[in-house]
Amino acid sequence: MSIPSSLTSATLSGASVFHKALASSIEFPSNLSSPFGSKICLTSFPISTGSKQSATWSLTRSIAPIQGISSHAIHGEIKEWKKFELSDVIEGKQFDREMLSAIFDVAREMEQIEKSSSQSEILKGYLMATLFYEPSTRTRLSFESAMKRLGGEVLTTENAREFSSAAKGETLEDTIRTVEGYSDIIVMRHFESGAARKAAATANIPVINAGDGPGEHPTQALLDVYTIQSEIGKLDGISVALVGDLANGRTVRSLAYLLAKFKDVKIYFVSPEIVKMKDDIKDYLTSNGVEWEESSDLMEVASKCDVVYQTRIQRERFGERLDLYEAARGKYIIDKDLLGVMQKKAIIMHPLPRLDEITADVDADPRAAYFRQAKNGLFIRMALLKLLLVGW
Amino acid sequence: MSIPSSLTSATLSGASVFHKALASSIEFPSNLSSPFGSKICLTSFPISTGSKQSATWSLTRSIAPIQGISSHAIHGEIKEWKKFELSDVIEGKQFDREMLSAIFDVAREMEQIEKSSSQSEILKGYLMATLFYEPSTRTRLSFESAMKRLGGEVLTTENAREFSSAAKGETLEDTIRTVEGYSDIIVMRHFESGAARKAAATANIPVINAGDGPGEHPTQALLDVYTIQSEIGKLDGISVALVGDLANGRTVRSLAYLLAKFKDVKIYFVSPEIVKMKDDIKDYLTSNGVEWEESSDLMEVASKCDVVYQTRIQRERFGERLDLYEAARGKYIIDKDLLGVMQKKAIIMHPLPRLDEITADVDADPRAAYFRQAKNGLFIRMALLKLLLVGW
Amino acid sequence: MSIPSSLTSATLSGASVFHKALASSIEFPSNLSSPFGSKICLTSFPISTGSKQSATWSLTRSIAPIQGISSHAIHGEIKEWKKFELSDVIEGKQFDREMLSAIFDVAREMEQIEKSSSQSEILKGYLMATLFYEPSTRTRLSFESAMKRLGGEVLTTENAREFSSAAKGETLEDTIRTVEGYSDIIVMRHFESGAARKAAATANIPVINAGDGPGEHPTQALLDVYTIQSEIGKLDGISVALVGDLANGRTVRSLAYLLAKFKDVKIYFVSPEIVKMKDDIKDYLTSNGVEWEESSDLMEVASKCDVVYQTRIQRERFGERLDLYEAARGKYIIDKDLLGVMQKKAIIMHPLPRLDEITADVDADPRAAYFRQAKNGLFIRMALLKLLLVGW
Repeated sequence: MSIPSSLTSATLSGASVFHKALASSIEFPSNLSSPFGSKICLTSFPISTGSKQSATWSLTRSIAPIQGISSHAIHGEIKEWKKFELSDVIEGKQFDREMLSAIFDVAREMEQIEKSSSQSEILKGYLMATLFYEPSTRTRLSFESAMKRLGGEVLTTENAREFSSAAKGETLEDTIRTVEGYSDIIVMRHFESGAARKAAATANIPVINAGDGPGEHPTQALLDVYTIQSEIGKLDGISVALVGDLANGRTVRSLAYLLAKFKDVKIYFVSPEIVKMKDDIKDYLTSNGVEWEESSDLMEVASKCDVVYQTRIQRERFGERLDLYEAARGKYIIDKDLLGVMQKKAIIMHPLPRLDEITADVDADPRAAYFRQAKNGLFIRMALLKLLLVGW
Repeated sequence: MSIPSSLTSATLSGASVFHKALASSIEFPSNLSSPFGSKICLTSFPISTGSKQSATWSLTRSIAPIQGISSHAIHGEIKEWKKFELSDVIEGKQFDREMLSAIFDVAREMEQIEKSSSQSEILKGYLMATLFYEPSTRTRLSFESAMKRLGGEVLTTENAREFSSAAKGETLEDTIRTVEGYSDIIVMRHFESGAARKAAATANIPVINAGDGPGEHPTQALLDVYTIQSEIGKLDGISVALVGDLANGRTVRSLAYLLAKFKDVKIYFVSPEIVKMKDDIKDYLTSNGVEWEESSDLMEVASKCDVVYQTRIQRERFGERLDLYEAARGKYIIDKDLLGVMQKKAIIMHPLPRLDEITADVDADPRAAYFRQAKNGLFIRMALLKLLLVGW
Repeated sequence: MSIPSSLTSATLSGASVFHKALASSIEFPSNLSSPFGSKICLTSFPISTGSKQSATWSLTRSIAPIQGISSHAIHGEIKEWKKFELSDVIEGKQFDREMLSAIFDVAREMEQIEKSSSQSEILKGYLMATLFYEPSTRTRLSFESAMKRLGGEVLTTENAREFSSAAKGETLEDTIRTVEGYSDIIVMRHFESGAARKAAATANIPVINAGDGPGEHPTQALLDVYTIQSEIGKLDGISVALVGDLANGRTVRSLAYLLAKFKDVKIYFVSPEIVKMKDDIKDYLTSNGVEWEESSDLMEVASKCDVVYQTRIQRERFGERLDLYEAARGKYIIDKDLLGVMQKKAIIMHPLPRLDEITADVDADPRAAYFRQAKNGLFIRMALLKLLLVGW
């Protein structure tokens, strides 16, 4: 969406440039670029092109002098964004292999953008509303960072319950109709399962589900799969241990669903008896040809897996029975000993926050992937915001 | 406030351009514009002009070739912003017909800016502080969206009570003196009537009242009148039904005040006995030559009005007497039957949030104007921010 | 970090400009600048230069006509930012005289930037996370304003306790590792002494302590010293009265530490018996050659001081003994009578918020420096953000 003014200038010096085609090259006195090496500008002169476009430019080769000044050619391409076949992000089930692959490609581009020193302006002029009916600072900051890293702006509310408080009684639909008037995309966190779907059905702008109660948290599921792809290099043929609270953990359930889309995946369930993986997932895996196995021997499982996905045992699930909680949480700990049996290229993942189910001395090991995993959440959210707002 | 770099370039090619006058035109090789049709840039090169100015540019006509390249002329105008005769927005009474008309003109420009795909930079570099002593997410998001749609930035606080907590005991005046050091305009919501006036008297920067307790909420009043003007096309000679809680509704009271500035207005009050319009407003209307009438027959009134303005019966006004509340709230409902008797060009308004005083099946009718009304709040707030910060 | 496109253009017209050196000048048709006087653009074309640089440009002298158009020369300098020898801001003790002097130089530049009408883009593309474990709206707004005045962006959280709630039990270190993935600098407020140091030890990005419990609040200390320097014109040889709650006031304790770095400083302690300055500070001053004296006669002390630094008596320190609180808070009030004995060039400071320990009728006196002091907090924070993020 941006064109360097230098293009404009060069044209005026009489050189034949800027063809009517979408790709064009331009001749350029090379002393212009001298103080900056080969990085001269080329990124940031906004232009309203009548439709959604991006422009990329690069210095290519030396050319004959222009007016006695030695010159470079610049190659430019104007790329029309194409609409991506995704209008909302509501649940993990939406995504097939092809779509995951496309999202991951864009997420990799986002990694480059985030690393570069200059700010992207891909989403300049776009406004995201973070409509959080319950606070989730970690998820909110991740989305807001994603939007701002791409040059977009944010409206924040962490007390959206007000909109629909029992006292005032506004419906979610009415709230959405109001908020969509103020913004270009809504990222919603809600305490009720199904709320995101309801919001998306009402809104004329894209809606991203940032977690709806015990329901879905699709961007977490996407970042988990993206992390495995990035770290292990593949998704077909991998073996994954899901460890900890498998009964209540939204994360591991979603991950199991998504892994079922890939070939020759083997899943191990390692959990205290009281929080075992439920039958619906087991049945789903079986009917989708995914091999799975329950085990109580974390050491043995960890020694043969590509991924050990640890989760937190949630105290609040145990009510008064603190004795059961203490027994459960101490049962499967990832520590230096476990690292000792793990394969060299395997990784440890965790959705965070963690308590002591992974000991702190594991953090320094290169196989400890959980902070990289958290960072991948940023790239996945940047990719989704770009795909939903301008396409690809 | 922005000048295209292409202007600069064109000058250098030797053409006679950019006169010393504030309006100038520039000759331009037309192949430059080819990839973009007639929309070539012209919006976004910021220039510090020493005083507050805006620049608009448009391609006009083909001209003789420059250096063998077929060329266009571009017409540009640099417009000096003039100070608007408004330094704060405190209460509805401030506004006379002429000022309303000027604000509405700017609000209409704002509609165009909001609809255009490229971001406005009219308020680039300006910082708005939203100083909310009580949360009002809807109003806050509307103001913050307005500021950001114009390229401005926002400092947010929804817990401003801290500043002046009983324990610490800082005066509102001291808080304002501190916050005005951080920002260029203050939008304040307060729980006490008169707080906005006090803040404006202290501050050296503009203050906008976003509601002060049972007192005023002038931007709501402005957006209501703007909505009637936009939807009905006039304000003189209209007939308006005010329905629901007329005793406690700040909105309908302010609206009645503002409507009294126009000619041949007829107002109908339709409300449960227990929340009837108070005498002060009735007296004010009478003494300003506005015809008004009370009625208990909503069907009959609705059939002859241009505007049916519904409001929510507020449960909190009834204390323990839930029986009275239930009776009052069920009394005047806007539903499909009422739509049946309303005129074709009439509209239904509501300040939102609504409960069931308008049934959901009314929403799809083109006469249901309440979500457009909420959106108009954005345009009115954009207009006020522009007028107060840079003028017109 | 920005280069005007006009530079580019001028080059192309064949003039000999833009040398390979970091400082260059460019010839420019002067009619270009006409509509804008001498202020033509020169501030805002972003360029990615591969390393951290700033560019400043100015019109210098008339030159021979180019293509028949009378022309100016423009002088431009591209300045490479140098890393500042400061990676985090944790406590007052970090700063020696030389560093204070450097920070104050930058703070003075920041005053100019804040006053200029066009927005700075020095920190464009940078993202600051305000990670507040307890709300402190005043400090937060000051930091966020500083960041935005320099073109940077902000991620805000005032409920960071969630990250590490007892229930979830995440360590501060884990939180920091996550948040540093979303931002370029962390400004942290915490309820525990030492938290900032712990965060800085973990983070790979700069951390600024915005107050950690009863511990340090270094930016307050810096702004206090900067205010004395700005208002009195020197720090060596000054006499300062510290008044009010000297036992519990973090502010006066830090100020005493910093003043000890300067020569011939004399400090007077004036406080109710119950909240006297503690021995550790007195010993520190003595061992650093700072003269100090306790007094109960505020009038006498004020008549000979350059600075009277008043503080609030904190009710919460007195528990049930409201009688003692009332006695203490009424004891040393700054009012018109005290102004009468103060020197003409002396100033009154206060960290704010104030109750009635300075009467409101003092505010209009030019020696009342406390609101200017609050504003200086903005400049100091702008300076620190610039120094930590891009250098000097």
